[in-house]
Amino acid sequence: MEQVKVWLNEKDIPRQWYNLGADLPTPMLPPLGPDGKPIGPEMLAPVFPMNLIEQEVSTERWIDIPEEILNILYRWRPAPLRRAVFLEKFLDTPAKIYYKDESTSPPGSHKPNTSVPQAWYNKQFGIEKLTTETGAGQWGSALAFACQLIGLKCKVYMVRISFDQKPFRKIMMQTWGANCIASPSDQTNAGRKILAETPDTPGSLGIAISEAIEEAVTDTSGKTRYSLGSVLNHVMLHQTIIGLEAKKQMKMIGAGTPDVIIGCAGGGSNFAGLSFPYVADKINGADIRIIPVEPTACPTMTRAPFAYDFGDTACTTPLLAMHTLGHAFVPPPIHAGGLRYHGMAPMVCQAIIEGLMEPRAYHQLASYEAAVTWARTEGFIPAPETSQALAAVIDEAKKAKEEGKEKVILFNYSGHGLMDLLGYDAYLSGKLTDYELPEEELQKYTKELEKLPKAEVRKTGKW
Amino acid sequence: MEQVKVWLNEKDIPRQWYNLGADLPTPMLPPLGPDGKPIGPEMLAPVFPMNLIEQEVSTERWIDIPEEILNILYRWRPAPLRRAVFLEKFLDTPAKIYYKDESTSPPGSHKPNTSVPQAWYNKQFGIEKLTTETGAGQWGSALAFACQLIGLKCKVYMVRISFDQKPFRKIMMQTWGANCIASPSDQTNAGRKILAETPDTPGSLGIAISEAIEEAVTDTSGKTRYSLGSVLNHVMLHQTIIGLEAKKQMKMIGAGTPDVIIGCAGGGSNFAGLSFPYVADKINGADIRIIPVEPTACPTMTRAPFAYDFGDTACTTPLLAMHTLGHAFVPPPIHAGGLRYHGMAPMVCQAIIEGLMEPRAYHQLASYEAAVTWARTEGFIPAPETSQALAAVIDEAKKAKEEGKEKVILFNYSGHGLMDLLGYDAYLSGKLTDYELPEEELQKYTKELEKLPKAEVRKTGKW
Repeated sequence: MEQVKVWLNEKDIPRQWYNLGADLPTPMLPPLGPDGKPIGPEMLAPVFPMNLIEQEVSTERWIDIPEEILNILYRWRPAPLRRAVFLEKFLDTPAKIYYKDESTSPPGSHKPNTSVPQAWYNKQFGIEKLTTETGAGQWGSALAFACQLIGLKCKVYMVRISFDQKPFRKIMMQTWGANCIASPSDQTNAGRKILAETPDTPGSLGIAISEAIEEAVTDTSGKTRYSLGSVLNHVMLHQTIIGLEAKKQMKMIGAGTPDVIIGCAGGGSNFAGLSFPYVADKINGADIRIIPVEPTACPTMTRAPFAYDFGDTACTTPLLAMHTLGHAFVPPPIHAGGLRYHGMAPMVCQAIIEGLMEPRAYHQLASYEAAVTWARTEGFIPAPETSQALAAVIDEAKKAKEEGKEKVILFNYSGHGLMDLLGYDAYLSGKLTDYELPEEELQKYTKELEKLPKAEVRKTGKW
Repeated sequence: MEQVKVWLNEKDIPRQWYNLGADLPTPMLPPLGPDGKPIGPEMLAPVFPMNLIEQEVSTERWIDIPEEILNILYRWRPAPLRRAVFLEKFLDTPAKIYYKDESTSPPGSHKPNTSVPQAWYNKQFGIEKLTTETGAGQWGSALAFACQLIGLKCKVYMVRISFDQKPFRKIMMQTWGANCIASPSDQTNAGRKILAETPDTPGSLGIAISEAIEEAVTDTSGKTRYSLGSVLNHVMLHQTIIGLEAKKQMKMIGAGTPDVIIGCAGGGSNFAGLSFPYVADKINGADIRIIPVEPTACPTMTRAPFAYDFGDTACTTPLLAMHTLGHAFVPPPIHAGGLRYHGMAPMVCQAIIEGLMEPRAYHQLASYEAAVTWARTEGFIPAPETSQALAAVIDEAKKAKEEGKEKVILFNYSGHGLMDLLGYDAYLSGKLTDYELPEEELQKYTKELEKLPKAEVRKTGKW
């Protein structure tokens, strides 16, 4: 029997985060203000504390992780590296399938890797309350968890359709002492405006972001800030602890450098967390294929243009250069999983443009099929988001069999699906259908981007 | 910072289970048949496969764990030993609080420690299908999980009130390929009879057991057997891997022998799993207090008589000598957690009679208060059952502070609460009230026991 779990001792936890920004072959395009000009750090100050803004714009390669943050992460980190020997056997593949198990955190996903540092830096900066948005609830519960442990108030605007359909995530947040309300709400101008126009709206992440930011910037005490669970540079930074741990663990068992790295990508953070430390190796010549996976229902990386766009529906954020379906994009309700954000982390996008990554999209039926295969071989029930990655993992393992090649696959098991079982019910009872965003829908939303400053595509052409 | 997680490598997993039956100072009373006479193993043959019956009646101290079973357990075992440093700090206690984290299994509790061996032995015996009952759903999902991995069909009778209130557990079982239906059902004589008498019954574990056993024994192919998740000797046996791992882990970090061992007890299996290897030490002179904890709503160990009783409502099982509230006992719906079975593992009962254990009961408000304290300090959300143990742990840690004594507490974190968040919602919104089984209710149900053979209380008086 092969060893299936690789532990890393607490004392061996990485003590620095890795900043891909220091190594990207071409620098990223700067965020733009409402006037179309690059913004300075001070323009973000009403939204984020300055210590996090410094991380957001940092070009340092390594950034120290404060000991107090590590002391909180120890509750579940270092996370196990596991090998999927039972799936390998089922697929009869020569591929070795390793994964970082990020489902072991108290909120059940990789999200607290950044919610904890974000809450901690805010607290250090004198902030007393954080606001945020959440879709399926992974991020909201991760921030609620972090704020509870660090001693901050927490207010979560949860997309209405999820608020109604997933009461358990709300209870989780309340158990950790947070205030969770449905978005759009009557507590912000942005929310009231949308409710007046479309009282029955299911809500969207873009709307919820607008509300959360509004609450933060309009608090006259100056003691409230906003927190984002993905997309931004400092979020990617915090998540790199995943890949840095994985490298140590792969080394411990002599598993070498992976041939393929896979992660699902909605805003990009869990994928970036695992892959960025390996992207650095690839920049330096390592032969690694790096595959971010998204749903065909929300095909940001595979079909959307690279453009400047707002991060939220109400157009209150700075403009970010990224692959985007347009800030007005509303994901189809037919899609059962997460990964519904209209944009993608600019740092991931720049790596894609450089050719360092090979994005791929899967239908939801394929991803649920992969999820059930996983549950019935490995035993654990994955999050619907994670299942997108699993679909690609299984395809790569099958390809290895066809080619008769030994291959090392490493992927990120970003979270468990215990809070998302209704999607499994829909799949198992045949109620789910495939969905691919129609071209006319794509055109409709992305057409709006032409009114915004154009993003220049810059690449070295080396990869 | 103290180390908070202690891993045991897969190669160091215990390779034998421990049978307390070999060391109990006075032998247990035998199960009785309908004629009031001790039954032989052959009478259990329609219900269980002979290889498990042999374990049920075994007096061997150590029983080898087949390698194939270990290969399945490796998915999550050895389970981590953890130290609750954050709770210790919050309580400002000199006590050191360790726990075995049994929440890391795919179904989220200790239950698969026995569902996997049970499914495996049945498969070895040529059985093709297992039936069982489940209350809150922990056991049903654990058996569904095991049957899926081992290749058996699985049918779960789920107590109707839980079936209706906890659809997620049902989906979990279906994801693992099991057939889960509400009990009482129209698929058995026992179910039809009860439905005819009380069509609106919420069901009970006793009823569901009757249905599951009926389906097994009436399958004329002889290829169906029944599986029980607690109470019986062989279940306690399989769970001892918890305590055997704990001993190795406590030794690894030089934490010595615990002063106090705590576990919640419904049928007794998670408590037995952790404590029995230490009970052996206590029998041999070690100074350990061993505390099983139950709810005041279902006070089997603390208030019920020691008597012969049926394991199910329909009086189809052999009579077992145990603390019992009477087989007709219907637990009050007011109680939010599990631990609602009318009886208690005979082996645990005999250890209580010997004075080797100090059972204790808690109100549900106290246990939920402990659960929320845990979630807000340690970060993880415990199962309502586990919270009963937590209430006792916190009391013992506070006592250590009052007495100014260093004390090592070890308890079993039997499962997570992610599938049971409605109870937290009820608690946080002030809808839960305390409940203590009224004396007249206790008398009503236990009066029936006078019609059955009397159980002789036998003890050495040494503890």
